[in-house]
Amino acid sequence: MSVFTTVTPDEMGAFLKRYAIGGLVELKGIAAGITNTNYFVTTTHGRYVLTLFETLRADELPYYVNLLAHLAQHGIAVAGPIANHDNAFVDTLNGKPTLLVNCLPGAVIDAPNAAQCREVGEMLAQMHLAAGHYDGHMANPRGRAWREAVAAEVAPFMDEAAAAELAAEVASLAAQDFDALPAGVIHADLFRDNALMDGDRVGGFIDFYYACNDTLAYDVAITLNDWCVLENGDIDAERARALLAGYQGVRAFEPAEAAAWPQLLRAAAVRFWVSRLYDFYKPAAGEMTFAKDPGHFRRVLQHHVARRDFWL
Amino acid sequence: MSVFTTVTPDEMGAFLKRYAIGGLVELKGIAAGITNTNYFVTTTHGRYVLTLFETLRADELPYYVNLLAHLAQHGIAVAGPIANHDNAFVDTLNGKPTLLVNCLPGAVIDAPNAAQCREVGEMLAQMHLAAGHYDGHMANPRGRAWREAVAAEVAPFMDEAAAAELAAEVASLAAQDFDALPAGVIHADLFRDNALMDGDRVGGFIDFYYACNDTLAYDVAITLNDWCVLENGDIDAERARALLAGYQGVRAFEPAEAAAWPQLLRAAAVRFWVSRLYDFYKPAAGEMTFAKDPGHFRRVLQHHVARRDFWL
Repeated sequence: MSVFTTVTPDEMGAFLKRYAIGGLVELKGIAAGITNTNYFVTTTHGRYVLTLFETLRADELPYYVNLLAHLAQHGIAVAGPIANHDNAFVDTLNGKPTLLVNCLPGAVIDAPNAAQCREVGEMLAQMHLAAGHYDGHMANPRGRAWREAVAAEVAPFMDEAAAAELAAEVASLAAQDFDALPAGVIHADLFRDNALMDGDRVGGFIDFYYACNDTLAYDVAITLNDWCVLENGDIDAERARALLAGYQGVRAFEPAEAAAWPQLLRAAAVRFWVSRLYDFYKPAAGEMTFAKDPGHFRRVLQHHVARRDFWL
Repeated sequence: MSVFTTVTPDEMGAFLKRYAIGGLVELKGIAAGITNTNYFVTTTHGRYVLTLFETLRADELPYYVNLLAHLAQHGIAVAGPIANHDNAFVDTLNGKPTLLVNCLPGAVIDAPNAAQCREVGEMLAQMHLAAGHYDGHMANPRGRAWREAVAAEVAPFMDEAAAAELAAEVASLAAQDFDALPAGVIHADLFRDNALMDGDRVGGFIDFYYACNDTLAYDVAITLNDWCVLENGDIDAERARALLAGYQGVRAFEPAEAAAWPQLLRAAAVRFWVSRLYDFYKPAAGEMTFAKDPGHFRRVLQHHVARRDFWL
């Protein structure tokens, strides 16, 4: 259940008068999502999604919100934000910062096929290009410093073999330098549950609240590690090749990116192994936890370490 | 036939590489429209419309193009412009300034019903509100000076009774002062052929190339004079009341607007009587003309002059 802040139809009807999108027809809480409150808002003009931000403050939102507006204006499949009559995307309702966006077509899928992976790769590359002129900037809050600090913090809770494996990998990554690779705005969390698929097409990428400026090919690695993974943590070669072909059909890897690619796949696996370890061993007090199996990304990492074929 | 500048699929395919909207699937000239060249562009991501501007120069376009972007961001049903990888809406193809926009749902309808007139009135009011913070400004090029100059220019070609009638009306309007009425961005040409209807809903308003800053209620009068007109030039009361109720449900007329309303209806009729007279008597050399009957708006005017009921 993700409606932390209740909005009544009367409140919503009054709120909509600040916008040019018609009168309220239906208001319905959305169960998915664990951080913010979301409602489907049907008006006389169409369908929208209202988000009430439960943790992000209004002054933290412009990077994400203006990014969505920028990408929507470039034709990227994202939920375009709607401005109010004060010409602002972020408004306030019941004490929370809000965002109204267009409703996207499609649904989350658990078992993508190769054609869908190709489309996701292609749209991701288009997104990387379209964000080229985006003037916001945010360092990756899940970058090297975070990785090293959290890995050290969770180590005492882990079994010895796993802790040693993680420490070795974190040390190995510390010796890598991705800073010379092409960088820009990345989604940084483009898992299957953050994309709506409309048949084989991308209906839209959602949940940009990990977006930041970082290495573009690292974003591809994060995406591939989820979209193309098998249950045992190995990667399905057919889907991986399709995703990479979709991506590189729009933006071909430079030689330096191709050279770093095996390490980027490992870095992407470590990123989520570490955050899942943290959520598993250090759940926030009072927070409803949906801790996912940290072992999954350990297995993904192990497959990458053992691999010789990186589908390039 | 409105394809003045031919674009080949090869040229379009290369052009699309400047955008993030996928690869070309189909390219099809659009027959409607008499000023610009328009193509339906189907890509792997969706459907778009490409306009090549045949008469407007690139430096004249920002007012219109940024207005469309502004309105789209406010959720108004207009074709949102797509920015290229240089972050510009206006590009160049085959020597002409271009604009790519999203394809809108719906179709032009000739015989609107009252429900459709209500929706058009409502969306027009939302558009007026949404444009409240638009920072572009353009004086109406079809305002009083134009009206008086063109009326004088066409008078020698008209029969005496009509010329006298027009001169009297132009003199009468010169004594009116609409400058104190609420003003803002108006479409200024929201005829039935400039809206796509999706059932009873507005799929989108199109063809903003007469948009300018002028009296808001004058825009309503222009719209009503076309959407609610009968073949004999009289106004259908049911549709007129529906359009006005739709508009005023969002933005109620101020007393000064209601007082000026009969004169605004006449001013709106004269505006198009004059331009049709001009197109009829002074067609541009070499231009393919689609001159419409000027007498239609003379009859609309006559009905307004004789009327006692203005549906308010």
